[in-house]
Amino acid sequence: MTPNTNNILRLSREISTSKSKDLVIIHGGGSFGHPLAKEYKISEGYTGEKQLKGYSLTHQAMVQLNKIIVDSLLEAGLPAVSVTPSSFIITTNKRITTIDTTLIARYLTTGMVPVLYGDTILDTKMKFTILSGDQLAVRLATELKAKKLIFGVDVDGVYSANPKIDVNAEFFKEFSVSQLKNTKIGGALSTDVTGGMLGKIIEAEEAVKSGVNVILLNALKVGLIYQVLKGETVKGTVLRR
Amino acid sequence: MTPNTNNILRLSREISTSKSKDLVIIHGGGSFGHPLAKEYKISEGYTGEKQLKGYSLTHQAMVQLNKIIVDSLLEAGLPAVSVTPSSFIITTNKRITTIDTTLIARYLTTGMVPVLYGDTILDTKMKFTILSGDQLAVRLATELKAKKLIFGVDVDGVYSANPKIDVNAEFFKEFSVSQLKNTKIGGALSTDVTGGMLGKIIEAEEAVKSGVNVILLNALKVGLIYQVLKGETVKGTVLRR
Repeated sequence: MTPNTNNILRLSREISTSKSKDLVIIHGGGSFGHPLAKEYKISEGYTGEKQLKGYSLTHQAMVQLNKIIVDSLLEAGLPAVSVTPSSFIITTNKRITTIDTTLIARYLTTGMVPVLYGDTILDTKMKFTILSGDQLAVRLATELKAKKLIFGVDVDGVYSANPKIDVNAEFFKEFSVSQLKNTKIGGALSTDVTGGMLGKIIEAEEAVKSGVNVILLNALKVGLIYQVLKGETVKGTVLRR
Repeated sequence: MTPNTNNILRLSREISTSKSKDLVIIHGGGSFGHPLAKEYKISEGYTGEKQLKGYSLTHQAMVQLNKIIVDSLLEAGLPAVSVTPSSFIITTNKRITTIDTTLIARYLTTGMVPVLYGDTILDTKMKFTILSGDQLAVRLATELKAKKLIFGVDVDGVYSANPKIDVNAEFFKEFSVSQLKNTKIGGALSTDVTGGMLGKIIEAEEAVKSGVNVILLNALKVGLIYQVLKGETVKGTVLRR
């Protein structure tokens, strides 16, 4: 459990100084949730009683990471407020089937910035599983009719191959899910060591369809999150239908 | 923020070794939530933008206390799991008007022990306020049709006066809200330095009416929580209609 404190505080400041309205923040598990979720096989659903402690420990790890992030956002002057996905969402075979976003909407009208995360989750078929921050972000963006959905990742956007290992990887300024039928790209994305680029694109399709502007960009590059929140054009991949 | 670590671990062990089924645990704010809630006047509702940070800080303090308690319960071998009240409950003028207990019920059937707490809360009239653990406990006991509702306090139960300052205070083995009309008792209870004994009794009336067995007992006395969970008769005050 090693938080990247410098980047968390820098991003907190970029978000805060952008003075964005009606903002919702979702973060993933990083080095907090993933190792425990893997150890107790939480995403595979209930297989035995021993997992119950693991479910709780995984959630506790996420609570701890969320606390670090919310504290950092508060320090940066943003009225951030923690909202716990596993306390109001239920999935069925890993897909969200129960969610009431009125509480999130109410936080927004009160002037606060809800901060959610990928979390352990109760599931009507598997008893429990893992809900990804990606699925949650897309669902919230769609239900709350967001104008923009920004995925901050550790590469510049979508490439034809993993840019970290293939120097010939082609960068896409625009990308559509239909391009995934090109199996070379789909194959490359699915084995992406950064994990989940393919997952993000497939999840995000739903938001794109609903008219949300979806962009993937490199959150490690200083200033990019600030600029995109200010409405400036930045390097990144815009998803298209 | 000074957790009574010894008592938390002792109570965790008493609860765990009692092997109780279908258990829900609710705790209050102690030295964590109360000072911040008071400083930012959260229970009085929205009066200005400065409170937004205070709302979040108060909630964060409760998250921190809850983490200590859930970690302690896990250490004692109980499959405890944290559930965040402010993520699924909304009040109207301080009374719960939006609550879905199916998620809590699902945790119970999965074999876990949900742990909730008094929390900051969104309110449809006041924008936000504080939800007491007492109101939450009574509402959950009523909705989930609990057999028993146990209030662990720092005195033996209900007295005619504050037993900490009045040696002539009479102890009640049984007590009904109608006895509060005796203004001497009501008055004494309302100024109780332990705070909230009157509040607990008034809240608990709803559970008593619904047929829940409500008992107040001294959780500081070693073994009492274990015994009452085992179904044994212990010193305490049973509430009657």
